[in-house]
Amino acid sequence: MSDAMLGKALLIRAVECDQNGRILEAQTLYQDGIAQLMSFVHSEPDEVKKKGFLTRIKEYIDRADAIKARVNGKMMLGEVVTHLSIEENDTGNDYDQIFGQYMTDETIEIMLEEPYLTQNYQFQNLIRFLELAVTNCKHLKYIRLITKKDANNLDQQKTNLGQIKADLERRQIAFYIKYEDTLHDRKIFLSNGYIIKIGRGLHFYKASNPMYSIGLTNYKYRKCLQTDVDIWRTNK
Amino acid sequence: MSDAMLGKALLIRAVECDQNGRILEAQTLYQDGIAQLMSFVHSEPDEVKKKGFLTRIKEYIDRADAIKARVNGKMMLGEVVTHLSIEENDTGNDYDQIFGQYMTDETIEIMLEEPYLTQNYQFQNLIRFLELAVTNCKHLKYIRLITKKDANNLDQQKTNLGQIKADLERRQIAFYIKYEDTLHDRKIFLSNGYIIKIGRGLHFYKASNPMYSIGLTNYKYRKCLQTDVDIWRTNK
Repeated sequence: MSDAMLGKALLIRAVECDQNGRILEAQTLYQDGIAQLMSFVHSEPDEVKKKGFLTRIKEYIDRADAIKARVNGKMMLGEVVTHLSIEENDTGNDYDQIFGQYMTDETIEIMLEEPYLTQNYQFQNLIRFLELAVTNCKHLKYIRLITKKDANNLDQQKTNLGQIKADLERRQIAFYIKYEDTLHDRKIFLSNGYIIKIGRGLHFYKASNPMYSIGLTNYKYRKCLQTDVDIWRTNK
Repeated sequence: MSDAMLGKALLIRAVECDQNGRILEAQTLYQDGIAQLMSFVHSEPDEVKKKGFLTRIKEYIDRADAIKARVNGKMMLGEVVTHLSIEENDTGNDYDQIFGQYMTDETIEIMLEEPYLTQNYQFQNLIRFLELAVTNCKHLKYIRLITKKDANNLDQQKTNLGQIKADLERRQIAFYIKYEDTLHDRKIFLSNGYIIKIGRGLHFYKASNPMYSIGLTNYKYRKCLQTDVDIWRTNK
């Protein structure tokens, strides 16, 4: 498919997602579609045609900006639903116990901001989170992961995340990975309006010690590190 | 404590367990108590006293034999509750889904015959089974594990099982390990009367492939190897 065709196809899907309330996926599609069209326009020799294209691209950029404002607005406004302090060595805090009840059939999109995904246990935590999402959110369509690049082994990180992306796509869930090297805060945004903020993100479990003991695989028995959990609900 | 004192203490606990229907633990305690008393009797120089002790030991041996017959009887008689054929690559078969419903508050003792416990994934499966037992059987007091010795690394196997034993004892669950090198069949006996026979024992899951994919930690998404499951209920 040419850049222009691909760009158009992406933008058509962007508008569809936008109309269906799937604003995170729409945002990604607008952005990708615009980039495709831009690279096509740059190679267009006819200045009149070029100007026409740029005018239409500008419209899509405006739509994308409007969505960005909506997404950011959703992140900021809202009411506190609950607060939980996890103390050092506490148990009874697997993901399901903390925020499983907010991951519902109405959650069709998820944005996960988790800066640290480089170690084996961190990828395991990501899978554990995704398993819960797949289990609880029956109509899940799109997940956006924002994380930092692994400075030491970027290839391995990309391989792992690529495998996860392929696996989710087999389940008809789009998985979009964005690298942001300045990311610090952790946040989980659910499209049904809930935002979960955990001080340590997904990684607040201690290692199983001794390895073979209750809590190795069932994290409700895992000892935790101290961290705070805040759960918000955005205004619809 | 002297051999004689320890032996007596074990036998008192054996009788208590026996009277409370905890026949697996009673069996272990009779056996250990008898062994302690025997080693004491052998060093008793007074032939008359020795004979008196042997007479009492004989009574305990008879009780232990009676329990053995009861345990074996329970294993053999019963009615089929359900049969399940797991096909190659099936999913939806974590331990809880297959037999979680039979592990209840009435399960105070468990006997697990699992010949193969040497590899990392096999110990993980054992922990996964024990986590389910601890979760579902609120009054669990005793687990007997029967397995084969690891011919290649017995020290590591003993270390791992020793750690599991210590971990369970912190939860007031006695864990008794018996090595039987001729063991082949797999069986789970629950003291509430259910027997679960799985052709491959605890080890019927395929490896996660690729490693980081849905099913890495939640085994209801894990692909299985072909195996049959038979569940029986013994006559009470």
